[in-house]
Amino acid sequence: MSQETSAEQPAGSRLDPHLARYAQRTRSMTASEIRALFAVASRPEVVSLAGGMPNLAALPLDSLGEMLREMTATRGTVALQYGSGQGDERLREQICEVMALEGITAHPDDVVVTVGSQQALDLVARIFLDPADVVLAEAPSYVGALGTFAAYQARVVHVAMDADGLVPDALRATLASLAARGVHPKLLYTVPNHHNPMGVSLAAERRLEVLDIADRAGVLVLEDNPYGLLGFDGSTHRALRAEDARNVVYLGTFSKTFAPGLRVGWALAPHGVRERLVLASEASILCPSAFSQLVVSTYLDRTPWLEQVKSFREMYRERRDAMLESLAAVMPPGTRWTRPEGGFYVWLTLPDGLDSKALLPRAVSARVAYVPGTAFYADGTGGEAMRLSYCFPSPERIRDGVHRLAGAIQAETELVDTFGASGRGAPDATAPAPDTV
Amino acid sequence: MSQETSAEQPAGSRLDPHLARYAQRTRSMTASEIRALFAVASRPEVVSLAGGMPNLAALPLDSLGEMLREMTATRGTVALQYGSGQGDERLREQICEVMALEGITAHPDDVVVTVGSQQALDLVARIFLDPADVVLAEAPSYVGALGTFAAYQARVVHVAMDADGLVPDALRATLASLAARGVHPKLLYTVPNHHNPMGVSLAAERRLEVLDIADRAGVLVLEDNPYGLLGFDGSTHRALRAEDARNVVYLGTFSKTFAPGLRVGWALAPHGVRERLVLASEASILCPSAFSQLVVSTYLDRTPWLEQVKSFREMYRERRDAMLESLAAVMPPGTRWTRPEGGFYVWLTLPDGLDSKALLPRAVSARVAYVPGTAFYADGTGGEAMRLSYCFPSPERIRDGVHRLAGAIQAETELVDTFGASGRGAPDATAPAPDTV
Repeated sequence: MSQETSAEQPAGSRLDPHLARYAQRTRSMTASEIRALFAVASRPEVVSLAGGMPNLAALPLDSLGEMLREMTATRGTVALQYGSGQGDERLREQICEVMALEGITAHPDDVVVTVGSQQALDLVARIFLDPADVVLAEAPSYVGALGTFAAYQARVVHVAMDADGLVPDALRATLASLAARGVHPKLLYTVPNHHNPMGVSLAAERRLEVLDIADRAGVLVLEDNPYGLLGFDGSTHRALRAEDARNVVYLGTFSKTFAPGLRVGWALAPHGVRERLVLASEASILCPSAFSQLVVSTYLDRTPWLEQVKSFREMYRERRDAMLESLAAVMPPGTRWTRPEGGFYVWLTLPDGLDSKALLPRAVSARVAYVPGTAFYADGTGGEAMRLSYCFPSPERIRDGVHRLAGAIQAETELVDTFGASGRGAPDATAPAPDTV
Repeated sequence: MSQETSAEQPAGSRLDPHLARYAQRTRSMTASEIRALFAVASRPEVVSLAGGMPNLAALPLDSLGEMLREMTATRGTVALQYGSGQGDERLREQICEVMALEGITAHPDDVVVTVGSQQALDLVARIFLDPADVVLAEAPSYVGALGTFAAYQARVVHVAMDADGLVPDALRATLASLAARGVHPKLLYTVPNHHNPMGVSLAAERRLEVLDIADRAGVLVLEDNPYGLLGFDGSTHRALRAEDARNVVYLGTFSKTFAPGLRVGWALAPHGVRERLVLASEASILCPSAFSQLVVSTYLDRTPWLEQVKSFREMYRERRDAMLESLAAVMPPGTRWTRPEGGFYVWLTLPDGLDSKALLPRAVSARVAYVPGTAFYADGTGGEAMRLSYCFPSPERIRDGVHRLAGAIQAETELVDTFGASGRGAPDATAPAPDTV
């Protein structure tokens, strides 16, 4: 929240002798205003409902360690060496098997392994987006994707969602309105399953409709699916890519089904797009880590990994239940929230007149943290809402956190009732903090 | 070498329905013409003097495996989790200790951990380079850096080298000539120690002069130093960054001193630049692998890693000797080459009239491969030379490879003597293959 991280004065600018030399795109790279606050929020006494970190406590670390010992001893000269820019062939085969669980038929040659799906986002943006190009994205949308689009100087236009995900009529209306101004969006970015941050999924009956609208408008669909296997009833939505292999680029990751610290994700893309993704990745990192890839590949081969995913699902369901139960028990009137059937997040809308960014310092003082809704919009809106994550803290901590949050909202409501609406600052044009807080 | 990878027809373009949608920058991303040939060259019967892969046979894999087992069992929930965008704090301290070996005084806060130093190159290019910006680079220059600069649509202007590295007078003349045309380069990219591909080092007496010229011209120096600890007599050059903390961005890596498969490199930058590098990295990959970083950090802490570097040096020296001895024994008159005192590479200049790209198919038929000199120039020149790597094959294989190459050169010389100069094709405008072949 300090001055030197505001949009007008990028961090360090007053002392930086290189200021005049930066590229145009660097001007859109600024630290989030909420970053400083999150440094405070990381103290142990604060319940963080802000982070998107998976809970790894359930991983069998001893047997993983033994697996790594053997892998290094027997295949170390491969694991520690440079690999191909596209990624390990065996792992790409296994990735196709993983995607088959969501109805996708794909060839390993069309898969590119990336440094988490964030790098896949970056590569797609890099090969498609010129400055001022338009990207359609859900309202709200994943903070890390918005940061990537901003880094390529693209303009994001948000499309409304409801409890069934992206609204097809809103997509049609947005496209028509843009077309009337001569604007043809390049991409439609969507998280169809257990959405980050809204916690909703795109209804089955909307999926073909959304694909059809995008295809007719000549807009490539970018399907980002980190949470697809984390549906609490164990069922899996059919991927958009399962219905359309030609106009969908699909992004996946092992960050939520195994471990984010290995940074292994992927893109599945039509052939010509895939070729360019590989060239862009080589220019960016030469090749993804052979070591990380072999760890994931060995893990998929040697362990009952789907059983592990099942135990993750059960753990997250217990935490989701704890959050929904305590929200229902303690939230003041006028507060609303989504009821996720998978994934990590609840999207909470505040009583009228309250602003989630103005509320945050009070919440942190009350020892609870969340991400203000503004982080998930490119246009500074979203102040009426916030994202609550239930993935990491224990159920007991979640209940404590929700109680503290309810107290902060109640206190802020009383203040607003006395003095009028809490000050909504200027729209927040700064890039949000990464989603790892 | 097939039609669909030429500059005019990027790979897959004729079948790619998305062709009209790509960004401007994507037009400069094309597969190397020599890529197809290297697929052939990777056959076991071919001696590859083309690759820049370090030789990992000397690593103690059993004890590394045991180290990894323990690390995973005891620190797995940290190693497998998301980490900071800037990189692990303890590792950044250790990186400062490594750089101190080259005379650098630095604070861990000014270090950014990256996915190999290639990502550091990418991030520096990303924050500094607008399309058409000019980068000064040695003639010849590292193929991966040229690929990165091309990906940001920068123009590379080469500056002459000799046996003592970059020539200060040539740098002055190039700057003057550019200034006369109103062109102010953004960066001077240099590999001062055991240069890739030339195998020479910047003489000590030139270092302050080069820094002074760059500083006066307002050009930021980008010092890329993968081979600094691989001097065969065990001595270490003082880094450029050791003399100038304000106008140098220093890039380092563990790829050559430990293992490239972990993809751990770094940038050391002035404070304002460092802040922007972190923001750019977060938009690109969120954070580097916590797992890879902890492996490197534990390795540096727990093993006599400088002893390991010493054994790498001795292994590479033996291979360098094998190459220089057999070059002296068998190369036809008119062939010249550099005599590296460290690193991986010899730069060989062919007898007059011969072209290294035209020669390559003949060499591969004779079961030896190299990288044509054109790969190391942004302007298609360099056909008179080639890079020979001695890092990976055994001394015996190196001698075999040099004998085969001498035979190919001899045969081509006879052809040229009979029919005139071998056909030099049009300047090679395609991006080179990554340096991991």
